[in-house]
Amino acid sequence: MPDTSPAVTAALLIIGNEILSGRTQDTNLSHLARELNQVGVQLREARVIPDVEAEIVDAINTLRQRYDYLFTTGGIGPTHDDITAEAVARAVQRPLLENPEARQRLEHHYRTAGLELTAARLRMARIPEGAMLIDNPISSAPGFQVENVFVLAGVPKIMHAMLDHIKGQLQGGAPVRSRTLKCNLGEGVIAAGLEEIQRHYPQVDIGSYPRFGLSGSFQVTVVLRHTDADLLIEVGDAVAALIQRLGGEVEKTLIDDT
Amino acid sequence: MPDTSPAVTAALLIIGNEILSGRTQDTNLSHLARELNQVGVQLREARVIPDVEAEIVDAINTLRQRYDYLFTTGGIGPTHDDITAEAVARAVQRPLLENPEARQRLEHHYRTAGLELTAARLRMARIPEGAMLIDNPISSAPGFQVENVFVLAGVPKIMHAMLDHIKGQLQGGAPVRSRTLKCNLGEGVIAAGLEEIQRHYPQVDIGSYPRFGLSGSFQVTVVLRHTDADLLIEVGDAVAALIQRLGGEVEKTLIDDT
Repeated sequence: MPDTSPAVTAALLIIGNEILSGRTQDTNLSHLARELNQVGVQLREARVIPDVEAEIVDAINTLRQRYDYLFTTGGIGPTHDDITAEAVARAVQRPLLENPEARQRLEHHYRTAGLELTAARLRMARIPEGAMLIDNPISSAPGFQVENVFVLAGVPKIMHAMLDHIKGQLQGGAPVRSRTLKCNLGEGVIAAGLEEIQRHYPQVDIGSYPRFGLSGSFQVTVVLRHTDADLLIEVGDAVAALIQRLGGEVEKTLIDDT
Repeated sequence: MPDTSPAVTAALLIIGNEILSGRTQDTNLSHLARELNQVGVQLREARVIPDVEAEIVDAINTLRQRYDYLFTTGGIGPTHDDITAEAVARAVQRPLLENPEARQRLEHHYRTAGLELTAARLRMARIPEGAMLIDNPISSAPGFQVENVFVLAGVPKIMHAMLDHIKGQLQGGAPVRSRTLKCNLGEGVIAAGLEEIQRHYPQVDIGSYPRFGLSGSFQVTVVLRHTDADLLIEVGDAVAALIQRLGGEVEKTLIDDT
């Protein structure tokens, strides 16, 4: 039965000068996209912005209104450049308060490690009023959810753990499935037929990605994406028939989840 | 002599469903950021959006007005999902025309390769009126510059070649230099002193990036960024003194370019 419910959508806001300077390679976007899709949430936009409060506030307000969920990564540590919690509080117009449960977790973590809970570390207990904490099993300083905004760490290991923790709570639609076909034809050879198939199946997201071999050889990967696996089988078979009709060899996968 | 000219800024618009689905890991952002910085242009924002014309047009118009330069990657191939040229033409309100020079390059490329210049391939010669072509030494289909918008390929190898070609034409300011200091203290230990140094040198971008070792050990990398190398030496020495005062060991670099 084809799924006709509206898509559940999300955006990602990546906060951090280190991404924009090229010093750090972001990997949270692709991880989030794949994880969200498993629970039927489609990542529709991402933005990378610097550690500047006014810009963070603006981007949060634009994106949380436009999509069902907004995720942020980065800027929740103890140093002066960690200003995400302040910015989110300002965006949702709630006071930023020391959260007793967050404080307790930090106290326990640092006591166990034999380290001092400095004033800077205590900053990580400041959470917008009424927000729900998101567990951080690695360094204890929690993320949080307020309204439809999920505030996660930027360190990938911690971000992954936080996402595991909240994934089950997201109200998603049907996950998008995909079918991938590789062939040894040029993109320009299959383009016209592919466009015709796209016109016939406008509801399927058909992407075409070329690869340029060392010896000038061609490879094109055609990716079909939709929530309905039967439809992907049908469209994939049409693409395979096109490739064979054009004299190409096709290597096709069945259905997967990305 | 400290540089006091205003910063020259840029944004990157990454166009493509394959990035937002998590199937493809973007690497063009970090490459562009580092290359631009070498010529004194600072990447200030990046957005990742799907292959949807209205969204591309909106993002182009927002970003090209907000920053000195806008770069786009992706969506300039021969298939139906390659709609960047149309979207840019619409955004800058110029007609999209077949460019004779672009056509000639495509004709030469495909003739040499013994391949047919299909109608789909010929789409890659459509360029907004008055735009300047950007060489593509790999697959010949050019990128282009129109006003302050640079339209580049999404395939990293081609994107790098196109960027090499145009880099020299950008009017940049002084490149941002950096100084990096690593230490074995926790972020929460150096945070207060670091904030004080930041207050004293508000013009320097001071970032602090923790790393969590397997054995629970700490490592913090402090990155100082500014155009003035002498200032970075001074601030870096202050950070090193802070770390030593707190009982930490510091490993410092001199100046580099990222």
